[in-house]
Amino acid sequence: MPKISTRGIEVPASPIRKLAPLSDSAKARGLKVYHLNIGQPDIPTPEIGLNAIRHLDRSILEYSPSDGFRSFREKLTTYYSKFKINVSADDIIITAGGSEAVLFALMACLNPGDEIIVPEPAYANYMAFAISVGAVIRTVASSIEEGFALPPIEKFEALINKNTKGILICNPNNPSGYLYSRAEMNKIRDLVKKYDLYLFSDEVYREFIYTGSPYISALHLVGIEDHVVLIDSVSKRYSECGIRIGMLITKNKELRKTLMKFCQARLSPPLLGQIVAEASLNTSDDYMMEVYEEFLERRNYLVDTLNKIPGVYSPIPMGSFYTIARLPVDDADQFCAWCLSDFEYEGQTIFMAPASGFYTQPGLGKNEVRIAYVLKKEELQKAMQILERALDEYNKMKVV
Amino acid sequence: MPKISTRGIEVPASPIRKLAPLSDSAKARGLKVYHLNIGQPDIPTPEIGLNAIRHLDRSILEYSPSDGFRSFREKLTTYYSKFKINVSADDIIITAGGSEAVLFALMACLNPGDEIIVPEPAYANYMAFAISVGAVIRTVASSIEEGFALPPIEKFEALINKNTKGILICNPNNPSGYLYSRAEMNKIRDLVKKYDLYLFSDEVYREFIYTGSPYISALHLVGIEDHVVLIDSVSKRYSECGIRIGMLITKNKELRKTLMKFCQARLSPPLLGQIVAEASLNTSDDYMMEVYEEFLERRNYLVDTLNKIPGVYSPIPMGSFYTIARLPVDDADQFCAWCLSDFEYEGQTIFMAPASGFYTQPGLGKNEVRIAYVLKKEELQKAMQILERALDEYNKMKVV
Repeated sequence: MPKISTRGIEVPASPIRKLAPLSDSAKARGLKVYHLNIGQPDIPTPEIGLNAIRHLDRSILEYSPSDGFRSFREKLTTYYSKFKINVSADDIIITAGGSEAVLFALMACLNPGDEIIVPEPAYANYMAFAISVGAVIRTVASSIEEGFALPPIEKFEALINKNTKGILICNPNNPSGYLYSRAEMNKIRDLVKKYDLYLFSDEVYREFIYTGSPYISALHLVGIEDHVVLIDSVSKRYSECGIRIGMLITKNKELRKTLMKFCQARLSPPLLGQIVAEASLNTSDDYMMEVYEEFLERRNYLVDTLNKIPGVYSPIPMGSFYTIARLPVDDADQFCAWCLSDFEYEGQTIFMAPASGFYTQPGLGKNEVRIAYVLKKEELQKAMQILERALDEYNKMKVV
Repeated sequence: MPKISTRGIEVPASPIRKLAPLSDSAKARGLKVYHLNIGQPDIPTPEIGLNAIRHLDRSILEYSPSDGFRSFREKLTTYYSKFKINVSADDIIITAGGSEAVLFALMACLNPGDEIIVPEPAYANYMAFAISVGAVIRTVASSIEEGFALPPIEKFEALINKNTKGILICNPNNPSGYLYSRAEMNKIRDLVKKYDLYLFSDEVYREFIYTGSPYISALHLVGIEDHVVLIDSVSKRYSECGIRIGMLITKNKELRKTLMKFCQARLSPPLLGQIVAEASLNTSDDYMMEVYEEFLERRNYLVDTLNKIPGVYSPIPMGSFYTIARLPVDDADQFCAWCLSDFEYEGQTIFMAPASGFYTQPGLGKNEVRIAYVLKKEELQKAMQILERALDEYNKMKVV
């Protein structure tokens, strides 16, 4: 039998999916499982988006342009201008989700052996995409004690060598919920400029910022316009994760030309998803405000409650819809697995993502979990009761 | 400004797209342009597929499973069984078009520097995907004189070295329309077995076979089950190019496990496209028969007419909806460009794909074009009149 590729062996299986079989078997045993493990919001997709597809007036579902419909990209410029991001339709390429945007950005910018620096904990799939293109991710650890703030920029600088091609950030952050300050973004800008690096900035959670702090986009930074590759997606903001519509935005013309070669090779982004996403740009402010208020309430409830459970600590996440909490356990991987395989409380249990999957440095995040607050408050309440009970039972068992 | 990656520079721009600006400016000058250049059928998508999306009863457009909906994959097994391809739902992974299927197959099987052998002319985007993953495509040329039959298998064998990992075929073939015979497929099978290679087989045109010759799928070949990676798509058969739904099929469990890591990294294939494609599997036999008859008539008309134009020769394509024709010109690239930039006949012109873009060996296909018969017969008639007139005028001009 012919061999699997080295990258095929090295690409890590999704850390969240590792526990999925345990969750399935918990359900098979009749348990209700609260999914705190994935960023799939329970919020309804805007009606205006759903109706666009219900009223489809096409007779042929043909290829769309490789960079996406121009009308969609034009409307996106208005959307971005609300966030003081000044881009033209030509600066925007539509992709099959933010995932394809990350993959193509790395393909176009990195040679095998090239390195990018990523503050961790970080979205686990960045690693899979980097390995897919033969690139190396070097990480700088942020810590729960510091609320996952940007680590000292000197730590980034210390990693820079001749192979370093870029810095990758997610802002607001998945998994930590941290939002980079103006001062932090400026430090990143200075480093990018000093060493002539790319700045890949995944900003899919910009609608979800719960503090008065300003949202500083990488595209707000002056003087590094040609260095910035912004990664975006409609998945989270409109609860449209399934339609696979993302964006790659850069003012660097040469890079865009190169990105387009990869886009043309795969012919076009999803047609139907574009129709939904374009219509969704007309979603009312009321919808967005309701969604925002809902997540704000969930966040406040979740963080308050977590910090009342003995031994548990969560910083206050400023954005996205995740938080990383420290639990009073030695090994959160084991604890999360145990919750699914051995524990139940009144026929229910919880599925959390062990945070170790978001770190590359061994040992980090060992007693941390990522919790996505994508469930209704009543469900979060139950989930938190279950967590408290599970920790109690688990630790009693450990003492015995 | 940071550098573009080497692969970004090396990936060829799509050969068809190169002429697109000329086509756009021809249209801007008010000309009607007959598109013989792309495989976008003008056939209506089955109503049953369109209705599935018009009657969408979901309130959240959420992620689907990374390998696609099980119900869809189950139904596909019935579809394949009609072609005597025996697969289970577990053998099938749903992808974002056949394009993603090719990319992930190469990512999972090939290391940088690894080689695959491809008979040419070949679908140009294979080259882009191979370069994307750092792999090398070695080609064996087939010829218009032999009707693009499989070249002697010894020519494949002569290219095999320690880096050779597989053979890639497209059957029925894009761009030539050739259909491999049982004897040819057996030769490929023997070589694959002898050298422990992968066999990547793109079979997206299996509905379009116009002769009595049998369709021999790579999955029909006995003894190399674990070597075969079948690439498929609903794009062509249901005129659903835009929905981006393809399939990766392999009985090799270890490979499937690896492919799934890439699938999980990109989360899920398009949700809405899957809904359309799954419903389309219930398309009536009448629809499929009408489409078939339509393409058969177009093919017969096109090939007859081409061969009546002085100096033009087209073999009789057995499948797909393309043919490669030899024209009485020195340089088909120039001629195709001239048709768009300088020529018109009664306010009309034609857009053909120069065949050189489907060959890697310099000089091959220099006087050949690929013509897609995706237009109605009346339009093909006009296009052929324009071609005859264009050749006449071009050659007179050249003599002067």
